[in-house]
Amino acid sequence: MYLKNTWYVACTPDEIEGKPLGRRICGEPIVFFRGPDGQVAAVEDFCPHRGAPLSLGFMRDGHLVCGYHGLTMGVDGKCVSMPGQRVGGIPAIRRFPVVERHGFVWVWTGDAELADPATIHHLEWAENPQWAYGGGLYHIACDYRLMIDNLMDLTHETYVHASSIGQPEIEEAAPATRVEGDEVVTSRFMENIEAPPFWKAALRGNGLADDVPCDRWQICRFTPPSHVLIEVGVAHAGHGGYEADAQHKAGSIVVDFITPETETSIWYFWGMARNFKPDDAALTDTIRTGQGKIFSEDLEMLEAQQRNLLAQPERRLLKLNIDAGGVQSRKVIERLLEQEARQRADLVASRAAAPAAAGAAAAGNASRPAIEIRPA
Amino acid sequence: MYLKNTWYVACTPDEIEGKPLGRRICGEPIVFFRGPDGQVAAVEDFCPHRGAPLSLGFMRDGHLVCGYHGLTMGVDGKCVSMPGQRVGGIPAIRRFPVVERHGFVWVWTGDAELADPATIHHLEWAENPQWAYGGGLYHIACDYRLMIDNLMDLTHETYVHASSIGQPEIEEAAPATRVEGDEVVTSRFMENIEAPPFWKAALRGNGLADDVPCDRWQICRFTPPSHVLIEVGVAHAGHGGYEADAQHKAGSIVVDFITPETETSIWYFWGMARNFKPDDAALTDTIRTGQGKIFSEDLEMLEAQQRNLLAQPERRLLKLNIDAGGVQSRKVIERLLEQEARQRADLVASRAAAPAAAGAAAAGNASRPAIEIRPA
Amino acid sequence: MYLKNTWYVACTPDEIEGKPLGRRICGEPIVFFRGPDGQVAAVEDFCPHRGAPLSLGFMRDGHLVCGYHGLTMGVDGKCVSMPGQRVGGIPAIRRFPVVERHGFVWVWTGDAELADPATIHHLEWAENPQWAYGGGLYHIACDYRLMIDNLMDLTHETYVHASSIGQPEIEEAAPATRVEGDEVVTSRFMENIEAPPFWKAALRGNGLADDVPCDRWQICRFTPPSHVLIEVGVAHAGHGGYEADAQHKAGSIVVDFITPETETSIWYFWGMARNFKPDDAALTDTIRTGQGKIFSEDLEMLEAQQRNLLAQPERRLLKLNIDAGGVQSRKVIERLLEQEARQRADLVASRAAAPAAAGAAAAGNASRPAIEIRPA
Repeated sequence: MYLKNTWYVACTPDEIEGKPLGRRICGEPIVFFRGPDGQVAAVEDFCPHRGAPLSLGFMRDGHLVCGYHGLTMGVDGKCVSMPGQRVGGIPAIRRFPVVERHGFVWVWTGDAELADPATIHHLEWAENPQWAYGGGLYHIACDYRLMIDNLMDLTHETYVHASSIGQPEIEEAAPATRVEGDEVVTSRFMENIEAPPFWKAALRGNGLADDVPCDRWQICRFTPPSHVLIEVGVAHAGHGGYEADAQHKAGSIVVDFITPETETSIWYFWGMARNFKPDDAALTDTIRTGQGKIFSEDLEMLEAQQRNLLAQPERRLLKLNIDAGGVQSRKVIERLLEQEARQRADLVASRAAAPAAAGAAAAGNASRPAIEIRPA
Repeated sequence: MYLKNTWYVACTPDEIEGKPLGRRICGEPIVFFRGPDGQVAAVEDFCPHRGAPLSLGFMRDGHLVCGYHGLTMGVDGKCVSMPGQRVGGIPAIRRFPVVERHGFVWVWTGDAELADPATIHHLEWAENPQWAYGGGLYHIACDYRLMIDNLMDLTHETYVHASSIGQPEIEEAAPATRVEGDEVVTSRFMENIEAPPFWKAALRGNGLADDVPCDRWQICRFTPPSHVLIEVGVAHAGHGGYEADAQHKAGSIVVDFITPETETSIWYFWGMARNFKPDDAALTDTIRTGQGKIFSEDLEMLEAQQRNLLAQPERRLLKLNIDAGGVQSRKVIERLLEQEARQRADLVASRAAAPAAAGAAAAGNASRPAIEIRPA
Repeated sequence: MYLKNTWYVACTPDEIEGKPLGRRICGEPIVFFRGPDGQVAAVEDFCPHRGAPLSLGFMRDGHLVCGYHGLTMGVDGKCVSMPGQRVGGIPAIRRFPVVERHGFVWVWTGDAELADPATIHHLEWAENPQWAYGGGLYHIACDYRLMIDNLMDLTHETYVHASSIGQPEIEEAAPATRVEGDEVVTSRFMENIEAPPFWKAALRGNGLADDVPCDRWQICRFTPPSHVLIEVGVAHAGHGGYEADAQHKAGSIVVDFITPETETSIWYFWGMARNFKPDDAALTDTIRTGQGKIFSEDLEMLEAQQRNLLAQPERRLLKLNIDAGGVQSRKVIERLLEQEARQRADLVASRAAAPAAAGAAAAGNASRPAIEIRPA
């Protein structure tokens, strides 16, 4: 169960550079591409002619050409042209609200009339030139909530990432969890510790000594539908830790956008935003490589956990203190799912009251009749 | 849904050279082999002893020996011998009518008493020394009717085979489709065009200039159950096109036998028959290699289309003008499926009226009881 | 259908050397490891915290540490410690009776209170220094009974293992089968034959001529739940065959422990025990390599047979004379399955009569409620 009336990260701009991209999001097979003016577009990945995936086609003048028989699709899901055919009678396919912002392409797979770009999560670091960002994408066969649990409880670093960012002091520092509206924050602070390898490298990269006692922090913020942004860092001890001035610390934001593909698989957009040396592209690459290796360590564990849970669906998991971040995040999701269900019921009622608008809204969703069309 | 009371191509003779071949046809696991006199035989690929696939065995004196415990099977589905056993009580397994003709092995997976070799599709080019044939076999995970659609609408050449046989003029020439009994013919003629790469090579191979305007034709003929034979070629323009004398043209017949393996997979026997330079084996190889490459381009598209259709079974496809060939072919198949259903109902009734004959006819089809047999 | 109130071979000691081993036995995902005193332990492969497989963790001081968040598990299925948590409220997970004996680890996946180590199959050759043993492990996708059938009818050697231990004389010698309580014995004796390649090598390895007529024997013994131990060997003809003095023969015991993983897959522990040159480790390796190659020949056949049987579940197999060993073994298993069903019914009744004991016995088996636990 995932929210549908919300914005998910669908892809990054480089993935639709000059070619279409087919990707299943929230169970919907979608093809993403750029239209005539460069704007992003998203329609069903299903050619209305014979059902071929449009994503196997190619771009021509901002239109998506089906690679089977050449049906040409516009950004609005309407057929633009078809070799030797009039196209007026060809039914439109479903289009999805889609927005390019903050360096990502965001898609809305729910009720299109509710899609408001203003509700897209604001990412200050993505717009501020003092910040740099690097990241990647993993496909993982697990429920998106298992990844939220993972990220809202960093105790696992000590075990899953023992050689890079894990250290025993993490589990000795009890996390504190608070809920602020739809946001859940789990914080952990460690004082007077030795920085683990990843952070020693970051200190050096930032021109700071790596062999002195440090304070370390992890502030995980869940926001709906499934974003987890984590402020992480270390400061030389005695300078205020998280509050220390910039010259005493190395910090960054771990970025996690978790997009459901199906009920038991995700597209996991991970990355790191930093506000030091933002123009150092080589440093961005180094961090991305290191982070990619660390984050790949979660894959095996999460997929094995998912298989175990699917095999024993009746089992209940424990909710220990360290799990509070995930537990509270799931509560927020459940509350919003209930809200969405009521919202959809209202929508159905309002559509029934205004059939014409409802018909327009539903365009492209229903099973469509076969038609026969004469040549042009 | 495929016809069962009909002949399908099962394999080519080289596939049963000195060894058995296991192949599923119309859902039936069958083993093909040559009997004592060299005649082809086809029986269930299921040893009556312990259920091992007989196709894992080997040939001995025209009998098929099971590779597990040595049960020896004859061409009629009856056990010939078994190490240390009398075999009288071992039940026969189902045999399938099978005929070797025109360079192919044809099998009948329906009601054996209706199998008439005279109804096997006659292939003039296979018997006439003025013709040469070369071809291959692909396994494709799609409904056999998707391949018929593909072949009865060559518009796709412009997109799927852009670098070899596709050209924009194909889609500018509207196809004409007619139905003659059980045969469906879709024709397309292009005049005064530049020949595409594949046909330039054929012109050269035939000793003709490849840099002059040409006329091009494609005449697709569907015949039941699922054969599509396509007359294709080019002639130097101004000599009558399809009707031109042999010295002005290069033409051939594209051969497509589409044998259902399951409801959603096929054995696709493709090839080309030509009536020029029939003794040039090197040319046959060159054509086969080129055609094999082109035809492999259809695989990805057809399998992706099939996955899309299975994922959205409620979707209806369009029937545009270019689709008329496939649409009409499917109508013929539907009519024959209804005819076959009536035929089977009659057969059941006639079997009930003549139980003895019915028992013989059904031999090998029913679940058989366990028996215990004493040693010889 | 397999017996559960019985001992199966789960693994060999080298598989749990310094690390846990996850293995599904009789449908149960189990993790095996050594406890603080070196004793073997077996518990559910399911961390009670978040469901991760415990087998992805590591050993620390004889406890199994979950690789996700560090929950530490003891040999009794009870949580020993958890970072930053009191563990009193964490429910125990199921533990399985497990015994290390005769060079194998044996597990009981049925009702724990019935597990009696005294009923583990005694293996004289495993304890006697006059004997040496070498073996291996294969995973095969077939019902365990198909492997029992395979081993209780060595006629297949002539076909499946034609180049090593097969020979035509095997099928000319009718086997004799007898049932003695729960044991089934199928014997076959061949006289005055040429030894096949494997046995020529064994004769040479034993310092005996390999080019003289031999007597050969195969005495297959099935014992529940699914062990097949086979006395095999050859003796120079005229010295009494199986009864010949040691200096005239080469013999050994083929060891087959067949452990169900699921209804249609097994862990197949195979090996050979010999009472000649027991200290010759190189000879042990040579035999293991040869046997491993021969036994791998059964894999393809058994998996193909299983697929055929699953595809046609209504088919009945023949029970020929050569099949008597397998047929009788299956009858023993069926009788014991009925006995086990009655035993379990009695157990349920007795648990109902003594709820306290029943609760203890069932610990770790039932679905457990979610709990929330405060930090330590």
